[in-house]
Order: sequence, then structure tokens, then C-alpha cells
Amino acid sequence: MERNVITDYLDSYLEIGSFTDDSANGLQVENSGTVDRIGLAVDACHESITKAAQAGCNLLVVHHGLYWGRQELVLDHHYQRIRDLIIADMALYTAHIPLDAHPEIGHNRVIAEHLELVDAEPFALYHGRAIGVKGRFKRLFSRTEAASEVEKVIGCRQGFLTFGPDIISTAAIVAGSATDTALFRELKREGIDLFITGEPKHGAFHLAREFGLNIFYGGHYQTETFGMKALGEHLHKRFSIPVSFVDAPCIF
Amino acid sequence: MERNVITDYLDSYLEIGSFTDDSANGLQVENSGTVDRIGLAVDACHESITKAAQAGCNLLVVHHGLYWGRQELVLDHHYQRIRDLIIADMALYTAHIPLDAHPEIGHNRVIAEHLELVDAEPFALYHGRAIGVKGRFKRLFSRTEAASEVEKVIGCRQGFLTFGPDIISTAAIVAGSATDTALFRELKREGIDLFITGEPKHGAFHLAREFGLNIFYGGHYQTETFGMKALGEHLHKRFSIPVSFVDAPCIF
Amino acid sequence: MERNVITDYLDSYLEIGSFTDDSANGLQVENSGTVDRIGLAVDACHESITKAAQAGCNLLVVHHGLYWGRQELVLDHHYQRIRDLIIADMALYTAHIPLDAHPEIGHNRVIAEHLELVDAEPFALYHGRAIGVKGRFKRLFSRTEAASEVEKVIGCRQGFLTFGPDIISTAAIVAGSATDTALFRELKREGIDLFITGEPKHGAFHLAREFGLNIFYGGHYQTETFGMKALGEHLHKRFSIPVSFVDAPCIF
Amino acid sequence: MERNVITDYLDSYLEIGSFTDDSANGLQVENSGTVDRIGLAVDACHESITKAAQAGCNLLVVHHGLYWGRQELVLDHHYQRIRDLIIADMALYTAHIPLDAHPEIGHNRVIAEHLELVDAEPFALYHGRAIGVKGRFKRLFSRTEAASEVEKVIGCRQGFLTFGPDIISTAAIVAGSATDTALFRELKREGIDLFITGEPKHGAFHLAREFGLNIFYGGHYQTETFGMKALGEHLHKRFSIPVSFVDAPCIF
Amino acid sequence: MERNVITDYLDSYLEIGSFTDDSANGLQVENSGTVDRIGLAVDACHESITKAAQAGCNLLVVHHGLYWGRQELVLDHHYQRIRDLIIADMALYTAHIPLDAHPEIGHNRVIAEHLELVDAEPFALYHGRAIGVKGRFKRLFSRTEAASEVEKVIGCRQGFLTFGPDIISTAAIVAGSATDTALFRELKREGIDLFITGEPKHGAFHLAREFGLNIFYGGHYQTETFGMKALGEHLHKRFSIPVSFVDAPCIF
Amino acid sequence: MERNVITDYLDSYLEIGSFTDDSANGLQVENSGTVDRIGLAVDACHESITKAAQAGCNLLVVHHGLYWGRQELVLDHHYQRIRDLIIADMALYTAHIPLDAHPEIGHNRVIAEHLELVDAEPFALYHGRAIGVKGRFKRLFSRTEAASEVEKVIGCRQGFLTFGPDIISTAAIVAGSATDTALFRELKREGIDLFITGEPKHGAFHLAREFGLNIFYGGHYQTETFGMKALGEHLHKRFSIPVSFVDAPCIF
Repeated sequence: MERNVITDYLDSYLEIGSFTDDSANGLQVENSGTVDRIGLAVDACHESITKAAQAGCNLLVVHHGLYWGRQELVLDHHYQRIRDLIIADMALYTAHIPLDAHPEIGHNRVIAEHLELVDAEPFALYHGRAIGVKGRFKRLFSRTEAASEVEKVIGCRQGFLTFGPDIISTAAIVAGSATDTALFRELKREGIDLFITGEPKHGAFHLAREFGLNIFYGGHYQTETFGMKALGEHLHKRFSIPVSFVDAPCIF
Repeated sequence: MERNVITDYLDSYLEIGSFTDDSANGLQVENSGTVDRIGLAVDACHESITKAAQAGCNLLVVHHGLYWGRQELVLDHHYQRIRDLIIADMALYTAHIPLDAHPEIGHNRVIAEHLELVDAEPFALYHGRAIGVKGRFKRLFSRTEAASEVEKVIGCRQGFLTFGPDIISTAAIVAGSATDTALFRELKREGIDLFITGEPKHGAFHLAREFGLNIFYGGHYQTETFGMKALGEHLHKRFSIPVSFVDAPCIF
Repeated sequence: MERNVITDYLDSYLEIGSFTDDSANGLQVENSGTVDRIGLAVDACHESITKAAQAGCNLLVVHHGLYWGRQELVLDHHYQRIRDLIIADMALYTAHIPLDAHPEIGHNRVIAEHLELVDAEPFALYHGRAIGVKGRFKRLFSRTEAASEVEKVIGCRQGFLTFGPDIISTAAIVAGSATDTALFRELKREGIDLFITGEPKHGAFHLAREFGLNIFYGGHYQTETFGMKALGEHLHKRFSIPVSFVDAPCIF
Repeated sequence: MERNVITDYLDSYLEIGSFTDDSANGLQVENSGTVDRIGLAVDACHESITKAAQAGCNLLVVHHGLYWGRQELVLDHHYQRIRDLIIADMALYTAHIPLDAHPEIGHNRVIAEHLELVDAEPFALYHGRAIGVKGRFKRLFSRTEAASEVEKVIGCRQGFLTFGPDIISTAAIVAGSATDTALFRELKREGIDLFITGEPKHGAFHLAREFGLNIFYGGHYQTETFGMKALGEHLHKRFSIPVSFVDAPCIF
Repeated sequence: MERNVITDYLDSYLEIGSFTDDSANGLQVENSGTVDRIGLAVDACHESITKAAQAGCNLLVVHHGLYWGRQELVLDHHYQRIRDLIIADMALYTAHIPLDAHPEIGHNRVIAEHLELVDAEPFALYHGRAIGVKGRFKRLFSRTEAASEVEKVIGCRQGFLTFGPDIISTAAIVAGSATDTALFRELKREGIDLFITGEPKHGAFHLAREFGLNIFYGGHYQTETFGMKALGEHLHKRFSIPVSFVDAPCIF
Repeated sequence: MERNVITDYLDSYLEIGSFTDDSANGLQVENSGTVDRIGLAVDACHESITKAAQAGCNLLVVHHGLYWGRQELVLDHHYQRIRDLIIADMALYTAHIPLDAHPEIGHNRVIAEHLELVDAEPFALYHGRAIGVKGRFKRLFSRTEAASEVEKVIGCRQGFLTFGPDIISTAAIVAGSATDTALFRELKREGIDLFITGEPKHGAFHLAREFGLNIFYGGHYQTETFGMKALGEHLHKRFSIPVSFVDAPCIF
């Protein structure tokens, strides 16, 4: 089918132009105009592009694209990635913050559903828009139990900081990498017993300790597969077009 | 031969990293690494790329490249240009201000030689570097004669403002488009009888009149072919590699 | 009559403070306070000022004023212009983007009326405000016929790029100088058969070709006389004050 | 004589282009080109301009000019000042930081000479250039005596903060208004017993107290007459041209 | 009582987050969390901090705090101030523009009430918010009488510029330091017979003269005590907590 | 001894003012002026401050201080840290980039010595200054052996990317966190077989793979203990003052 039908729909469904984001969200690389299969991947890395091309995709939708607001010449890894997109006649579409924040298929919303959080609502303001989700577990957990539950859902545990309460009722989720002081202040003020994010950071350790927070690190890559898979299913239902989740895991 | 040998030489010969310039000078698009023929063109437009590919070039050196300091996605004309560069396995190299200012093969220097100006020396500061050339004709001309001489050399006359002296002894050259007030002030202060540039501008007309200047417009495109051709000859001599000047004229 | 009565009205009628514009729109140079005749000109050049003074104007309203957001000392051409305004006791008022965009007496709206375009509506966003007009001709034209029609209305043809369709139904107008990629993208997406603007630019030629557009260049100066004349008539009707259109044509 | 001969000399003598300064130093308003008498004033206020015109000056040299790096339209007081400069055919030349810092006729250097400071040397870095002067009195003073000495020389006392030592040996001078923390830190570190400046500021009071400084306020206007008068004498000697110091005192 | 109860109330009552202000309004320095007595002072100087500590305050509310948008290290006077706040276990809360603009306990509103101005309304836009107050005296005064009235209310006269009308009906108030051209233009346009502000400035003298304004200077410190005292009374009523106005006068 | 003697020496020995760095290098928090014992720590976290105070330090020298170029209020963790510094009468001194780049006691230089690299020289430009070190191992290693050697020296292995050559001759070191594209380009161009840095990043994984690099991650904290310990020994030798390395490890 025609590529513009799909990408116009994505622009609208993801409210792609309405977020403040370094990422150049939307279509980043054109193809000749037709799409038979959509690939969904976390990163626009060479591995994702190669695997998507092998799977017969002509449109690759990613969370981390190639353009982040700065001039990028077609050199080195950018050359290899763009060259292989063009040779495979495969377009590249990017949704970064719009996919963190999406109320249906956003990473955090989908993880909250898997965790069966109740009273889930928006959390973590970024330029005036909530990009995370907070809620309550269906029952009280000990801290150790809660971490096991989360690890089971996310499928990965890269670290667990235990500077907060022993009994866990409330949780908040921001997939990927989330360490700024304003967020930690919000976690404290809102009484979040367990914060779930992706990538551990040196800068977070002592901050978490001094704010008295429990933080579960489920991996930058792993926490950001949830929205991509959910978006794939959504597009499949909407357009009856084949979709493939393209797995190119990163050990960090 | 190896592309890096040529582009490293260009980086050094044109002092490519030493100018303040919006243009991202240097290599902008890679190819697979080998160069058999070098194309030289004024603009990295689709016509130049197509003609260079047909001529068998694997490296295209241009004055106006694809990147000017801002993020450019691979969409619309950028998609068409980059796609055809990649399919032809042709690299793109850009030299903007470095080719205006070059003391041997710069546009202005070469035009000055064709006009047989004497006592030619740098002129027209841009971020502290002279990018133009000034000098004296070998004899006095009437204004009409001088314009005919210049038209003969450049091969184009897009306009001629005659608000300056009737008798022409001195001339200054800045190829392309040059209209700012500081330049006009410099022309006046230095007593330049005839200023030669490329592209007419609405904003220049009354300014030239109020400063009392003669300005000959030889065409943006036409005045910027001189350096490209001279650089082609230089590379041919230096590397004994075939070169082609790729003509994609613009009527403005 | 009192100058402030007129300039307060202009501030309101042209919504002078509501546009993002480099131009310092509104009153730029005071006079002693009384106005007997209003001059209207495209440029605040020395020729316009001199002619307006000779015509007995004490208020000159222009499209291109003296201040564009940067500090300007009273030197060179600025000295001559301001000196002669002050000696003639003539105030200077500027309306740049507000006169491109005006729904009654804007350049583009007035040209559209002369061309008898139907379904005329705003076009060409600039910082969120439409500054141009688009519509349909009353009948289909061949491309050559359409250009003749437009030339007849505008009174000038500085270039005609014919990279678009042969049969012309729709047209869009942005007076002055309009070449940016976003505009060309909008022209393509909206299916505009003929784009009418003022000043040719080197940078537009290959872009127009690669986007497949027809572009008629009616001259920067000529296309911007329409709004000035219409505003003059409007002021004459409103205040029963004598007005003069001050013609200081620029060949570009 | 020709105005440019004088202003070119001033540009060179005062190293006018070499300072980081908000003030647009150098020629700010042209005249028709001839100068018979030079006026020197602290401020380019209407009173200075009127008095200079009455005295027959065609060039007014000031410390505080009309342009400070921002766009200024010719409205209100700017209109009145520029109008009267133009009607009097009087040019305006400005030297701000260059006149604070000048090693021969700078305000601070001249005040230091009147105070007969010994071992006078540059002090108070501003963007890497010293703009003040420091030195030692020829003998020890009590704090009260020192203030009397300074008041006698400057002719004005607008305030005297006595938070520093009782016995005064060293002094530093920065004419005009000087209150920033870095300067107070420098005064403390260099062991300056008495700091002499012009204009009292609310923000300086508690800062001076907490840094433990003595500060004598001689008036913004009064302390900045010294360099203007000295420059006038210098120009008179250099060009044998009549000069007038134009007194337009400010009570603050 | 708990500090956060009071500071949350202040954030809301003073709309602390809604103003464009260099000052970092709100809580600037924490304490251990309890407040028994609130001090109110104009400046967060060492004298205010010392006196507030002696009076037994654990929260000091000021108009001029320690942070103005730039990084401030804990050195020199900042070290002394922060050290003594921490040793006294006293928090610091700042309200700058929010206290100029407040419609009940703002400096200007309270001064207007003391002067018994009628038809008092907002005046003096700063980033789109009115920060001053204007109104009419209950009867006509001669200029001399009006100044005496104002001096009686404010308790201080640091200067009086008499370049405006002799008979005073209307007045406007902006406490502290207010000298910019836009304000003077507003005073003229609105026909304010007497402007009341705090701190004299060299830059205001000739401007006031050329705009034809009467300006009464009541002292930067003195004019800004009014809001602090009124806020103190308000907090005392609201929370039944002891409050102290901490007087640390500045002679300027 | 006097604190200023030590901090003036550090300013000079570390060339503290000569680097472009977000960190506010140098003294960040004062104490009352005397130092009996110097603590050295990687982070100015609460744990470091508490342990240093317990060890009797009155000066704490860190790699990551409290100020990074932005305004920081004395709230939350900043309040706790500054409060405990002040209560312990302990000053805080920071050296960030100056300690990466130092040619004697810099992290990278000291690690290179422990690894017995030969021909060690500066590497990794940051704002024109080399902050890393590169060299050759004394013999060839297999990749596995090399990693074991490095792990033995650094005492930590947080990750090992093996996308480069199997046989290791050359190595480069940048302690802490180092992932930008320009650095990876430099590693490739200089033929570095093994890159040693501290903190793993999601963004580095695919980049390392596509550039074909081996990267050993020794931990952000662990790699930055080397310079602190070396600086401690240096200060002990220089001033015969007791020093303590304060260990506050971070698991990331």
C-alpha cells in the first residue's frame, strides 16, 4: 500500500508534531513510496536495518532514529545505515517522546498493563507533557517480591537500588533512561514506593540514596521494546498489513 | 585510486577546516572508497549528480553542497540526491568559502587572472578572512568598455548598475552573491571603480546608487564555474586522474 | 491632521504588533506631529524620500523600512535618509509582513483580485501566520497563456520556470522574494499549478525543477507596489487626506 | 577641517575597536563633513547637544552615546536628539570603555594624577582589559582626611561607606558606576583601603559592608568629566582646533 | 508548625511560579522543617540574617534573595550568609516581582493605600504583567505639596526631579529601581503627573527631563519595606504565628 | 595550615582556569580557613562528605562537585550536602576535566602507568585539549588476556564489547563516561585495538559494533579513583599534610 497513508496515520495517531523533543520525529528517510511489510525496532542501528530488509520490510518504525536536531553528514555509521535503507528501498519513521507518552501503546502504559497497575495515570512532566505512568500494584509486595514481579514482566534486571521503603504499594514507570533531579523530586513528593526505568547511570546512585528511593533498572533496550510491539499490533489491525518486530538487543 | 588520498589532499590544499562558513565543507557523503574519475560542479543538484554519474565519476566536488549547518532529513530533493549518489557509489565533497578565498584556484583569483588585473590582492573580509580579490586593469577603460571586457571573460551579463565613475581603473571581484552594507562601505573607501559579482538582488539597487557604485552582475552560476574548473585541472595534474567539469547551468 | 491619529489607526488596521518579523513595523522616525499628505512607497530609499518630500508628504509609509532588528547607526546611506526625512519634517512608518498578510489590502490579496482568482484563501505559513494567497483561475489556461495573463496584471516578467504541469488551474502568490524549501513542499502538496512571486534566486532554480513547479517571477519591486497602492486608497477614503504613491522602481 | 581626519585619529588614539563594550564606540551620527569646533560632554543628552550647537561645535564627543548594541528607532528623546544634531550639522562620536581605560587621558588615570597617587597601575579587569587604576597616596591619611582630599579633587561627595580600615594608604578608582562582586573581590584581595567610584547603588551597600570596604562616591557625572576635559585638551593641542567642554550636570 | 505548610501557601498566595523574573522566587534555602517565627526583610544580607536569627526566626522571607538565575558558589558573602542561615536552622524564601505586583500586599498597592489614591489600577507592564499601580490623589496638589505628602508616607526623600507639570492630580508607583525608556513612555502617554519610585539613577535624569516628568525618589530600601510588612501581617493573621519585620536599612 | 595556600597551589598545579568545562572547577564551598587533613573522593555525595568529616578532614577535593554551570538552590540533596559541609567546617574543591587531562596525576595517565603502556601520549580532544591517553602494551595480547590484565589493574569489569581485532597491541583510556561519535571516529582512525573507559551506555553498543571497536568498561566510579588517589599522594608529599582517600563506591 502507499507509504504516505501509513505515515500520515502515524503522524496523527502519535500526535507526532506536538512534543518538544530533540528527536526529529516522523519520516526521516523516504523510499520509493510503497509499503508491503512494516518493521518495528527500538534502534535504527545497522543490525535492525539489515534484519528488517531480510524480513522484506519497506518501512521501519523506530524509537531511536538517525536525527536528533543536529546536522548529520552521510559518513561512517550514518553512511552505512542510510546506504542500506536506500538499497533496500526501505523508509525510516521515528517516534521518540510520542511513544513514551502515548496513552494506548506507549512503553510505560503497556508496561503498566502488564504489571496490572490500578489507577494508572500520567506522571513525569517533560516540557509540560507527562511521559511516564504511575499507579498502584493490586496488592502490597515486599520490596524483593515487587522486583521479582517486575523482572518477570520486563524480562531483564540490570540493577536494583533499595534506598526506599520495604513495603511496595505504588509504582511509576519511565522506560529508557531517566535520572534528572526534578524527576527524583517528583517521585519523592508523590510517594512512589518503586520507580521502574531502563538504564543504570552513575549519576543516579547517590541521588537515589539521598532521596530515599527504590529504583528497578529493566534495561534501556528491554523497556523500550514494549511500545514498539504494541504499535506493531495496532498497525497490523488497522491496515491488515504484515508487521515484524525486529529484535536487535543491546546488552546495556 | 583511494578516495581518502584525494579528500585528505583537498582538506589540506583548500585549508578546509579553517574558515567560518555555514556550509559543512569537506566530505559530505561517502562512497565505497575508490575513485576513478572526479566530477566538478557548482551545485549538488540532481542534474549535476545524474550527469556526473553518467560520466563515470565516483567523486563529485561542488561549491554548493547538501549541508549548511542545519539538520536535513533524507526527504524530497534530499532523498533524490542522496539516493542517486548512493546508487552511483559516488562520494560528495564540498568547498564553499574555501573556494572563494583560495589564493591559487579560487573563483575570484582565477577571474582576476582572466581579466589580467595587476597588483591583485585580497579584498572583502568575511569573519576575518578576505574572500574576494581587487586590482587594477592594465589600462583605463570607459565604463561601457569595461563592462564589455568583463562580459567577454565571464560569458554572461545579468545586470549592470552604473552609479559610479565613468572612467574605470580599479576593480574588485566577489563571485556568487555579495550585497551587504559592510562590503559596499569597503568598496567606497577603497575607491573601487567597478565591482564584479554574480547575482542581482533587489536589496542592492538603491544601496549601490546611494553609495555611488558601478556593479557588474555576471550571474551566480557563471561566476562560480571558474574555481571549479581550475580545481579540476589542479587535481588532474596532481593525481593524473580523469576529471570532468559537469555543467548544470542555472538561468539566474 | 495629527500624525498619531493616522499611525494609531494603522497600528490597529494592520495588526502591526501581532506578527513575528525582523522588520521593526510601525513608526520608525517621528516628525513634528502634523500630516497633510501621505506618501506610500515600497522602499525607504533616498529616492523615495526625496520624491515624497517634493510631493509635500509629511508621512511616508513603506514596505521596507530602515530598521530590521539590529542596531543601525546614523551613517552613510542611513545618515542621508534620516537627514532628509528630518529636514523635510516627514515621519516614516513601516509595514512589512503585516502588508504581505493583510486580508484586504495585502499585496497578495490585491494581486489575486486583479487575477480574478476564485476560492482565494490564505497560504504559505510564516511563524504560524499565512502570508500568501492561493486560489483558482476562472478557467483553465495553457502555461503560456497563464504567464501572459499574470504578466499583463503585474506589468513585469523577470523569469519563468516551467518545470510543472502544462495546464494551469490553481495559482498561489507570495509577493517579494520567496524561495524556502518548506514553501516549495507546500506548493507541491497543495497541488499549485503556478506559483507567482517577485525576485528570481539562484537557489530556487534547481529546487523548482526537482519539485516540478512552475514559477512566474514578476519582480520584487513590482509585486510589492500592489499593497502600497491599495493601502493609499484605503487611507484616502478613511481620512479624506491626500495620498501619493511614490514610484522608485528597482530593475531587479 | 575634515571630520574624518579627527575621527580617524580618535579611532586610533583611543584604540576604539579593541574593547568589548555594549556601547557602539566611534562615530554614531555623521554630519556634512567639516569640523570647526569640537564639543566634549559626558552624556549625549538634549542639553549637551543644544549647548554644543550654541557654542558652534560641529562634532560632539561623548562618554555615553545614543547606541548601546540594540536597535533604536528615531522616536521620543532619540528623535529630539538626532533631529537637533542633524539640524546643527553636528556629528556625534562616542568613547565609553576606551575612555575609562585610556592610559593617558582616561577618567581614572587623570583622577589618579589629581590625587597624586604613586605607583599607579591598571586595575579592575573587564573582559580581560583593566579599566581602572590603583596606587598609593603620598602619605598615610585617616579615613576622614582621605575622603576630604578626594572630595576636594572631584568636587562632589554623594556617599561614603566606611566599612574598611581606618588608616588609608592605597586607593583604586573606577569612574561612573562600579558595583559587581568580582570587583569587590579584587578590591579585598589587593588590599585597597579606599575605593573611589561615582554612583551609589542599593546593591553595593551590604556587599561593601560584608567585604569590609571603604567606598567614596564622587557622582557618576562628576567622575566622568575628567577624561572628557583631558581629551579636549589633547585634541586642541594635536589639531590646534577650538574645543569646548559642555557641562550638562546630573544631580545623581 | 511545618515549614512546607507556610511555603506552599506562599507559593499559591503570591502566584510564585507565574512571573518572568531573574530572581529564583520561592524557597531558596531549606531548614530542618519547623517554623516558630517568621522574619520579613527587604534584603537577604548578613545583617538581616543575623538579626532574624537573634529574634528567633526559622524562616526568613525577603524581597531580594540570594539567587538571580546564575550559578552562585558558596564563597565570600554567599558563604557567610548561607553558613549563618544553616547554623541558625533558618530557611530562606524569596518573592521579588510577585511582591511588586501583588494586588493585596504588593509594595505599590500598599503605598497607594497609604497615599489614599483613588481609582487605583495596575500599571507598568513587565513581561506582560503589570507590576506597578497608578491612580489619582483625592485632591489637587501643588508639586511641592505632593512631594511633602509622599515623603511623609514613605519616610524618605532621596531626590525629586521636577520636569513635569506644576499641579499634581495623577500618580504612579513602582517601588525599588525603575528607569527604563518603555516605562517613561508609558508615564507620558498615560498622563501621570507624579511618578514615585525608589532609587535615583544617573541614566534617569536627562531622560526624565526630555520626557517632561516629575519623579519622586523615596529610596530603594524604604519603598520596598511596605510589601514585606504587609505580608508579615497577612501571615500572622493567616497562621497565628509570630512574625518580625527585620530592619536592615541601606542609606541608598 | 591555611586553606588558601593549598587551594592556590591546586589552581596552579591543575591549571584549573584553563579548561572549557561545565563543572565549576576550583573552590566551591568555603570553610573558616584552616585545613588539618585533606580528603579526596570521586563524588561530592552525602556519603563522601559524612565519611570525610568523620575522618577529620576540613578540605574535600572531588572530581564531581556540586556546581555544573547552572543555578543550584540549597534544597533537597544540595541542602543536605552543603549543610553537612558547613557544620563540619569543611571546604569543597573540585577538579573535573583538569583531573582527566593532567599529565602527572590525571586518571588516564595513572591508569596507563599501571598498565605499563609504552609511548603513552595525549589522546581524545575535548574543546581543543587532549583529555585521554593512548599507548602500546609491552607485548601483544589476545583480546581475552588484555581484558584480564585491565580488569586486574582497575579492579572492576562492567562490560566488554568485542567488535574489534582479536590481537591487542594498542590501547586508549578515557576514564568515566565516553561515548561520542567523534571519539569513536578517532579510535578507528588511530588504530586503537582496545578502548578502556568507565560507564557502559546503551548508545555505545551499536556504535561500537558498527565502528568495529573493542571497549572495556571498568566502571565510572572505579576508573576515576586513580587520579584522586594520585593527587592525594602528591598533596601529602608537597605539604606534609595528612590525606585520606574517601571511598564511596557506586555500583554503576
